[in-house]
Amino acid sequence: MFKIRLLVSALALTGSMSVVAAEALPTKAPAPADNPTTAEKVALGQMLYHDPRLSSSGTVSCASCHNTMLGGDDNRGGSVGVGGQIGGRSAPTVWNSAFNKVQFWDGRAASLEEQAAGPVTNPIEMGMKSWDDVVARLKKIEGYQKAFEKAFGKDSISKDTATKAIAAYERTLITPNSAYDKYVKGDKSAMTEQQVRGMNKAVELGCTSCHSGPAFNGPGTFQKFPVIDNGYFEAQYDFKKDKGLAEVTGKEEDENFWKVPTLRNVALTAPYFHNGKVKTLDKAVKLMAKLQLGKDLSDAEIADIVAFLDALTGEFPEQKMPRLPAYSGNTFN
Amino acid sequence: MFKIRLLVSALALTGSMSVVAAEALPTKAPAPADNPTTAEKVALGQMLYHDPRLSSSGTVSCASCHNTMLGGDDNRGGSVGVGGQIGGRSAPTVWNSAFNKVQFWDGRAASLEEQAAGPVTNPIEMGMKSWDDVVARLKKIEGYQKAFEKAFGKDSISKDTATKAIAAYERTLITPNSAYDKYVKGDKSAMTEQQVRGMNKAVELGCTSCHSGPAFNGPGTFQKFPVIDNGYFEAQYDFKKDKGLAEVTGKEEDENFWKVPTLRNVALTAPYFHNGKVKTLDKAVKLMAKLQLGKDLSDAEIADIVAFLDALTGEFPEQKMPRLPAYSGNTFN
Repeated sequence: MFKIRLLVSALALTGSMSVVAAEALPTKAPAPADNPTTAEKVALGQMLYHDPRLSSSGTVSCASCHNTMLGGDDNRGGSVGVGGQIGGRSAPTVWNSAFNKVQFWDGRAASLEEQAAGPVTNPIEMGMKSWDDVVARLKKIEGYQKAFEKAFGKDSISKDTATKAIAAYERTLITPNSAYDKYVKGDKSAMTEQQVRGMNKAVELGCTSCHSGPAFNGPGTFQKFPVIDNGYFEAQYDFKKDKGLAEVTGKEEDENFWKVPTLRNVALTAPYFHNGKVKTLDKAVKLMAKLQLGKDLSDAEIADIVAFLDALTGEFPEQKMPRLPAYSGNTFN
Repeated sequence: MFKIRLLVSALALTGSMSVVAAEALPTKAPAPADNPTTAEKVALGQMLYHDPRLSSSGTVSCASCHNTMLGGDDNRGGSVGVGGQIGGRSAPTVWNSAFNKVQFWDGRAASLEEQAAGPVTNPIEMGMKSWDDVVARLKKIEGYQKAFEKAFGKDSISKDTATKAIAAYERTLITPNSAYDKYVKGDKSAMTEQQVRGMNKAVELGCTSCHSGPAFNGPGTFQKFPVIDNGYFEAQYDFKKDKGLAEVTGKEEDENFWKVPTLRNVALTAPYFHNGKVKTLDKAVKLMAKLQLGKDLSDAEIADIVAFLDALTGEFPEQKMPRLPAYSGNTFN
């Protein structure tokens, strides 16, 4: 296809050997062998995902910080957990997270299933003491007994099944048919001239060495950020304070390495970077060019790239609101 | 119809002159002359209702406390507002609130429009400093400019239009086709024998003197609670501490008067009473009989009435999740 040629040839200019796949976003996400996606799991997962009773206070659901009515996040620097506590990293979008190779900013979860288990018992997020407590709470709710039975069989409420259901639901959160997707499928009118210019500039600069593939989050898994030390910007944004991958591995060589985040719907997910310190997309583009590639972009180049990134905003599938099952004895104050 | 005769004749036994209308819940709510319901207003209202950006912290939406995925409330004694503050009254259900004669527990709002304006600027609920601030925030969001334009015309974002849209949405939140509704429409198999027994007992006791009409919240608007002083229960539940209507009017004769709440979906909206101090429906029934009617019910009678109240759980219409429009410069931390 023309676009593939164009991207590859433009890439060739940068000397990178990365393969840039000008691929449209798949409309289905692959599921692991031990958790095939079923309608019953998805329905249950959507309920659990939106149920604030999975938090100690009964006020915070997965959707509170990864809001599917918005761009899949909460548009905050730090998310607000139980008791108004504020987390240290900006919530990544749940949309298209099925295409991430690892989950969390520091990649500490290998799968959506593993990720789903984390925030529920994180003391500053959903604050449950243990998954045993979550399971005990769910078991008291007749509607959940039935929904788990449909999805996993009788008496199946557990951490394992709950996180599998949430992951199965998350695998349906895909936003296809962006202007870019239409463009790479052959509709040359789908992107504006400015967006095409921005795409070519992004490739020429080398952005797509790290942000490639259908979700613009590969081919690698982790990358260092910032690559280039810059005292001026560091003083403003504290990017290096959080050590990222090294906080998980304890290895010095992993310091300031992060999961490469998807660029899909990036126009909707301000603020930017792991600490959410950068409020606008034009500023984020400018900083990425400077700190990762050592390039100073003109305002026109930045505007072109932002226009291209706008072309990565997809179509959000219509979702039904789940009905959350009643618990006749209330759980909270 | 048989049921009407039955209810009226049973009522005659109690000597009450109230008209008990054994009416099914209407499937449409009447709208005020200055706010006819339109699809565009409902769509906008649903967005505003679910948007946490209508709160100072960006974490609390109307739906946080009046959760339409649940029974239209939050199943708490006191709701949790911005900064984890806890309100003094239990959130009433939004489902079928269109059929309330007045809004809020103390009836201080005459309409859904007036009600919608309140929590947004209440410092312990959604905490916005003023509606001017809300309007300024909404005006920055292009998607809202468009949605207001569709609903109300160009440059129409205001407190008046926002609250009208929310009210228009709320008028669609109706739960018809409960077992009771089917029963009064002629399907005698829709309620169990126990439910019919409970219904007749409720009428005989006089419950329906205050809880009658299709939403079981009339014929009057306000009633005193508790009617009968009882030191034992008062010590446990503090019912009289909050003066209700008198807190609005300042009149001694209004002390402990409350809007008669709907009994529709009451099985889903634990805990009970204005302060949410009673956690289960059987206890609430027992206390109502004792404190309002001076009657001591047997466990069997209570179980029958609870079974009848279960028959008032309606069908929740399928709702689409709204898409909340993005704001590219984030508003919060």
